[in-house]
Amino acid sequence: MEFEKDLRVTETNIPGLLVFDLSVHGDNRGWFKENWQRAKMTALGLPDFGPVQNNISFNAKRGVTRGIHAEPWDKFISVATGEIFGAWVDLRPGDSFGRVYTTRLDPSKAIFVPRGVGNSFQALEDGTAYTYLVNAHWSLEQKKTYTFVNLADPELNVQWPIPLDECELSDADLHHPMLKDAKPMAPRRT
Amino acid sequence: MEFEKDLRVTETNIPGLLVFDLSVHGDNRGWFKENWQRAKMTALGLPDFGPVQNNISFNAKRGVTRGIHAEPWDKFISVATGEIFGAWVDLRPGDSFGRVYTTRLDPSKAIFVPRGVGNSFQALEDGTAYTYLVNAHWSLEQKKTYTFVNLADPELNVQWPIPLDECELSDADLHHPMLKDAKPMAPRRT
Ligand SMILES: Cc1cn([C@H]2C[C@H](O)[C@@H](COP(=O)(O)OP(=O)(O)O[C@H]3OC[C@@H](O)[C@H](O)[C@H]3O)O2)c(=O)[nH]c1=O
Ligand SMILES: Cc1cn([C@H]2C[C@H](O)[C@@H](COP(=O)(O)OP(=O)(O)O[C@H]3OC[C@@H](O)[C@H](O)[C@H]3O)O2)c(=O)[nH]c1=O
Repeated sequence: MEFEKDLRVTETNIPGLLVFDLSVHGDNRGWFKENWQRAKMTALGLPDFGPVQNNISFNAKRGVTRGIHAEPWDKFISVATGEIFGAWVDLRPGDSFGRVYTTRLDPSKAIFVPRGVGNSFQALEDGTAYTYLVNAHWSLEQKKTYTFVNLADPELNVQWPIPLDECELSDADLHHPMLKDAKPMAPRRT
Repeated sequence: MEFEKDLRVTETNIPGLLVFDLSVHGDNRGWFKENWQRAKMTALGLPDFGPVQNNISFNAKRGVTRGIHAEPWDKFISVATGEIFGAWVDLRPGDSFGRVYTTRLDPSKAIFVPRGVGNSFQALEDGTAYTYLVNAHWSLEQKKTYTFVNLADPELNVQWPIPLDECELSDADLHHPMLKDAKPMAPRRT
């Protein structure tokens, strides 16, 4: 991991999917980072997305893989410890439907995933802690209205560093539809 | 760590310092938790504190100790991996000035620390990731206006699990004043 980078944002091939370099300060104790900083980041182009929920998943073993999930809210995602390989798929109706972006995130990186972009990741280290902020509340009742795509879809052709058949997945994530059968995320009601 | 607890809040001897039990869901991949959930937690009495910044510190070794810091904002604190022993000291002017609360936090706990209450912790495991949300932006320029107390003050008599002289501390944290010389946190300007 690289320390003392300047805070910086990079656009991707998926509109609105933004990758951040974070400034991580190392010392005798370990390190410290501003993981999300509204003023500095909105100045660089992060939407003022108004988080209402912070989730953390702990991924016990290298290879744990979760996704591909698009819920009707924005996500600001990063890693507290460990490293992930992430894959994002545009599931909004329109020209960019089906576009894929992949990258690795260590604690010195973060990514803003806009509503309607499917999210997935594979832990590259044992004990990877993944943390994210969202701007609407998840609910079990509404889960059936969320949009899912299969991690193994050959059309997406994600180059997972660890083959999926050697990985821990949830039962739900084994059974999502392929992209051709996925329902695009409905636009936000206005 | 205890899994599948009900979300619950407990008051402490320091007014407004609230301890949360979080519901952590374990499965074949590891675990998942809603670390902060505005609607459910405000319903239980958490102030609607409006975070604008999320900080993460990584504490490489058991014994790393940080504090005691009171900045002019509220903090919602928890652990992503590992465990801490925390100590909080009321530094607001008034009857409760100098009161101390201590407890351990594993990932199934969180604590809301209101503005003016000094915050400190000791990592109890190697690789403890500590994460918190705050409702105002830190700045280096204003750091000299923040309030600090010495971790080793005998008047506070915090029973640190690992003796401080065996711990990694920052140079700044070695030199904070004792409680009797600390300046109470100025009330919020209205
Ligand atoms: C997302 C979410 C889940 N849960 C519970 C339900 C299950 O008991 C447990 C795990 O839920 P899963 O749906 O299996 O989550 P997971 O596969 O880890 O996916 C989550 O993390 C990756 C994210 O992309 C995705 O938004 C989110 O659904 O946590 C909650 O209590 N609150 C939540 O916000
Ligand atoms: C708090 C903070 C710090 N920093 C930088 C300054 C230093 O380069 C580095 C570490 O800062 P310290 O003041 O040494 O932080 P630390 O001793 O870890 O204390 C922090 O964590 C515990 C918290 O109680 C406290 O609010 C906070 O100051 O991070 C930032 O860039 N942004 C911040 O918000």
